[in-house]
Amino acid sequence: MLNFTYDIPIKIYFGKDQHKKIAAHLKSYHNILLVYGQNSIKRTGLYSTITKELEKSNISYKELQGVQPNPRISSVRKGITLCKDHHIDFILAVGGGSTIDCSKAISAGFYWKEDPWTMFEHNNETHLKEALPLGCILTLSATGTEMNRNAVITNQETQEKKAIHVDCIRPQFSILDPTLTYTVSAHQTACGVVDTMSHIFEQYFSNTKEAYLQDRLAESLLTTTIHYGPIALQQPHNYEARANLMWASTLALNGLLTYGKETDWATHGIEHALSAITDVTHAVGLAILTPAWMRHVLTEETSEKFSEYGRNVWNITEKDKFKAAEQAIQHTQDYFTKTLHMPKTLSDINVKEDQLEKIADKAVSNRAIGRYKKLNKPDILEILKDAL
Amino acid sequence: MLNFTYDIPIKIYFGKDQHKKIAAHLKSYHNILLVYGQNSIKRTGLYSTITKELEKSNISYKELQGVQPNPRISSVRKGITLCKDHHIDFILAVGGGSTIDCSKAISAGFYWKEDPWTMFEHNNETHLKEALPLGCILTLSATGTEMNRNAVITNQETQEKKAIHVDCIRPQFSILDPTLTYTVSAHQTACGVVDTMSHIFEQYFSNTKEAYLQDRLAESLLTTTIHYGPIALQQPHNYEARANLMWASTLALNGLLTYGKETDWATHGIEHALSAITDVTHAVGLAILTPAWMRHVLTEETSEKFSEYGRNVWNITEKDKFKAAEQAIQHTQDYFTKTLHMPKTLSDINVKEDQLEKIADKAVSNRAIGRYKKLNKPDILEILKDAL
Repeated sequence: MLNFTYDIPIKIYFGKDQHKKIAAHLKSYHNILLVYGQNSIKRTGLYSTITKELEKSNISYKELQGVQPNPRISSVRKGITLCKDHHIDFILAVGGGSTIDCSKAISAGFYWKEDPWTMFEHNNETHLKEALPLGCILTLSATGTEMNRNAVITNQETQEKKAIHVDCIRPQFSILDPTLTYTVSAHQTACGVVDTMSHIFEQYFSNTKEAYLQDRLAESLLTTTIHYGPIALQQPHNYEARANLMWASTLALNGLLTYGKETDWATHGIEHALSAITDVTHAVGLAILTPAWMRHVLTEETSEKFSEYGRNVWNITEKDKFKAAEQAIQHTQDYFTKTLHMPKTLSDINVKEDQLEKIADKAVSNRAIGRYKKLNKPDILEILKDAL
Repeated sequence: MLNFTYDIPIKIYFGKDQHKKIAAHLKSYHNILLVYGQNSIKRTGLYSTITKELEKSNISYKELQGVQPNPRISSVRKGITLCKDHHIDFILAVGGGSTIDCSKAISAGFYWKEDPWTMFEHNNETHLKEALPLGCILTLSATGTEMNRNAVITNQETQEKKAIHVDCIRPQFSILDPTLTYTVSAHQTACGVVDTMSHIFEQYFSNTKEAYLQDRLAESLLTTTIHYGPIALQQPHNYEARANLMWASTLALNGLLTYGKETDWATHGIEHALSAITDVTHAVGLAILTPAWMRHVLTEETSEKFSEYGRNVWNITEKDKFKAAEQAIQHTQDYFTKTLHMPKTLSDINVKEDQLEKIADKAVSNRAIGRYKKLNKPDILEILKDAL
């Protein structure tokens, strides 16, 4: 186990009707910026509930609406201007990962003297010390951003997607009300499940020896997510399924699984290149690439870890380690494709063989990715071809 | 899953040599109260390391030494006086649960206008809002107090042991350096393992339906603790064993397993009565009472949960639920007695049958205990007789 500093001061208000108490958490603020995405929070009545609560408590608010999936630096700029013009002292993000990431970037960008895109360039992270206070009402179980220090923003002009990881953008609180995810479609729910599982895999497969506890915790989150995924698909109003998926997706990327370990993140690296070039949904890309990555990194040496994964997560009883590992990978792929109805191959999403080179180039951008096994361009091409 | 508020702002500096960086965390303080127990930290050289670090950084300190197991309100009073006399602005607890609990009580007692024992009486918790900042260097993996809001203090005059649970006594940080537990004796190590497992059981066995994720997390911590217990006993300098046990014992009682669930705590209730009357070590009492409690609450209805425990923690494959449950309980008892060398019965620790009535009386003190199954005096007597 590696040394680590555990530091997660974000409050979580979890459960039924928690979002109705929003005003209670905002008493010491005067001008709120309400950030949200497209119209879904108006359609579901959530917008109306929140704004009524704010009005009842005489909390004044401005709105930044229309934050898109893969949130853009242009929305961040717009948000910063609103904050300055209206003396905003608190940002309330209502939505999924995109809305929250955009809000995080606005919160730090408010104090940043240059254009906010420069926060994402040149490893400026150490200079990011101050941000407007931020709270979240989560409507989608997937990214885990509601309980961490990360934000990913896209610059449409430069075709870049970059991240910051800093303490100052951590939300003060996040409201996790599972009932708010009842209206999430089956496909979006499946995407959230894949996203959560992929986050866990990126931390689970590691060269750190004897981070035994972290591995068992990771298996708990995987088991829970795998168990409730199909239940939520079939019964969208099943509270326990929604609650377990929500809390699992949050814990999957709040640091708990990473502390004390080296982590991988190669599959995410390849997927970011894939979705930048093909515009495929992130989780769909992950569902296709994950089994291919697993098969690529499976060796006699890593079969120990993969067979452990199979035994503890999929109840595989096969004694031969390599065979057990192969079965575990097959179970993973079957779960994605048969249980969650995700596409199986890159061909299924109309990626052509002649695009693979470009994707591989973008994924490596001159350096190897991944830590469980370092991947260079030829490795990535092999993974992409296997996934075709 | 029940609604909950997650709030754990305590920083953990985990790993090898972390305690040597103590001065870096104390830069903004001027007068430290160093609280510790008997002479073990002097014997191991830890006292010398810490005081040298403080002196190197020109941090002045006073000492409260001699805090005993089952820390006493008299030590708390002494500590408060020292804080007032020497303008203490930070308390540094170096030791196990007793030293930390005593320090927590001092930190709140400093601002408390009456005698500190009154903090523990009359549900005064809501009035406890302020405390001196506190940091811990942990030397024993067991109680979990280093990452929670609890403190238990004994009043020798009134023969009472009482607890407070308040936010203001949470440490600012705790340093968890597994190498500091290398010198913990085999018996004390075994006691820590039992203590940790008992904390997990009290939260695991619950009537809350579908706190599925919390149950899987609890099983992760149990599996880890059970795995590394005997390794630490046989190889006291095994870093991975000490590290996994330390982190597991901390996570076992920091709130993670409790959030979203009803919890039990009957076994602790009975044990506190047992140790108040017989002076047995807390964990020894727990090791004897836990299997007896399990057998008492095992019914057709609860056999589902106990068989799940058996399957997920002890790899029991027996199909019949009741039989699987009985096997799981037997495994638990065998682990305590054969692997950890704990006494098996109350007779083994010289408790006599004519003491049981008094213990049961003290345990109930006019109201039923436990939530998984409510226990009245006859239930407790049955458990005690079974454990005799």
